[in-house]
Amino acid sequence: MRTVLSSIPPGVLTIADAKRGDIGNSARFYASSVFDDLGFDSVTLSPYMGQDSLTPFLNYPGKCSFVLARTSNPGGNDFQTLNVAGQPLYSHVAKAVSGWAQDQPGTAGFVVGATDVSSLAQLRLELPEAPFLIPGVGSQGGSAADVMKAAGSGPVLINSSRAIIYASDALDFAQKASEQAQITQNELGS
Amino acid sequence: MRTVLSSIPPGVLTIADAKRGDIGNSARFYASSVFDDLGFDSVTLSPYMGQDSLTPFLNYPGKCSFVLARTSNPGGNDFQTLNVAGQPLYSHVAKAVSGWAQDQPGTAGFVVGATDVSSLAQLRLELPEAPFLIPGVGSQGGSAADVMKAAGSGPVLINSSRAIIYASDALDFAQKASEQAQITQNELGS
Repeated sequence: MRTVLSSIPPGVLTIADAKRGDIGNSARFYASSVFDDLGFDSVTLSPYMGQDSLTPFLNYPGKCSFVLARTSNPGGNDFQTLNVAGQPLYSHVAKAVSGWAQDQPGTAGFVVGATDVSSLAQLRLELPEAPFLIPGVGSQGGSAADVMKAAGSGPVLINSSRAIIYASDALDFAQKASEQAQITQNELGS
Repeated sequence: MRTVLSSIPPGVLTIADAKRGDIGNSARFYASSVFDDLGFDSVTLSPYMGQDSLTPFLNYPGKCSFVLARTSNPGGNDFQTLNVAGQPLYSHVAKAVSGWAQDQPGTAGFVVGATDVSSLAQLRLELPEAPFLIPGVGSQGGSAADVMKAAGSGPVLINSSRAIIYASDALDFAQKASEQAQITQNELGS
């Protein structure tokens, strides 16, 4: 882990995609390991265990914790879209977490998959300022143009992982990965 | 991790309390690391990302995956008890996961805290055969007698972690931890 981190150039945002979610006592140690010890800029968290599992991360000013809201995997349709008093569970989760982080603006972000553009647009309406980490552009289905439109003017971080790290398993990996990254960047119009 | 595992006597059930919950591709590697590589008997999982995040674990016959249902921490009240079509979210989660594991009986267990005895009793009615991992007896509130009654005749594993591992921070740790373990065992009436 430290070897990988040390190879990332300064100025490149790092995300510990660890999907942590544990009781407050464990969460404090996990937060310290991710932010203090390893020095990541951000992390992904799972919300199922509620406030005390998340606030130890949200209390780090200058760091961003991306809480799973509406994920882009097939199982993202199993529980996240359940109807809770007229709104989907993911919306309830995202608004609750935002409220818990209101004293530390910018520390609470959300994972919102590109595969469900209408959910993305709805969440952006509800949380105009929250950072969104958006996986699923391209290989998993969402078109870049639709995603950028739905994400509106709030802060977004669009990630592509497997399309790039699995671009090749041969000696041409660096070249193929670079090409794939460029393709994604072109799709995003930047 | 391997050092800790190697110090556990044979015949003692091991639980990787890792609360894993990630997309299917990652879940397959996590399951293999926990069960094949490290050789744990069981694991804890977070259900938020749905079926493809859990089935790679549930497909290991002879292993048990305890999925978070109704947890004993304060934040367990934030999302798990939300009303979903007349039933709490944790009940919906537990029944869905049990259905996904129906071809591999015994591989799907649930974390059900001792702090909410009525939820425990309700879940036992709904899932009479499922293994329950029950934290929170004693220090977090639930009385052992009430918990044993609510858990009924289905398989249960009652765990005490912090009361024992934090029994002392001095040289008498082994003695104090042993005493605390004995106290818990006596409370459970065995």
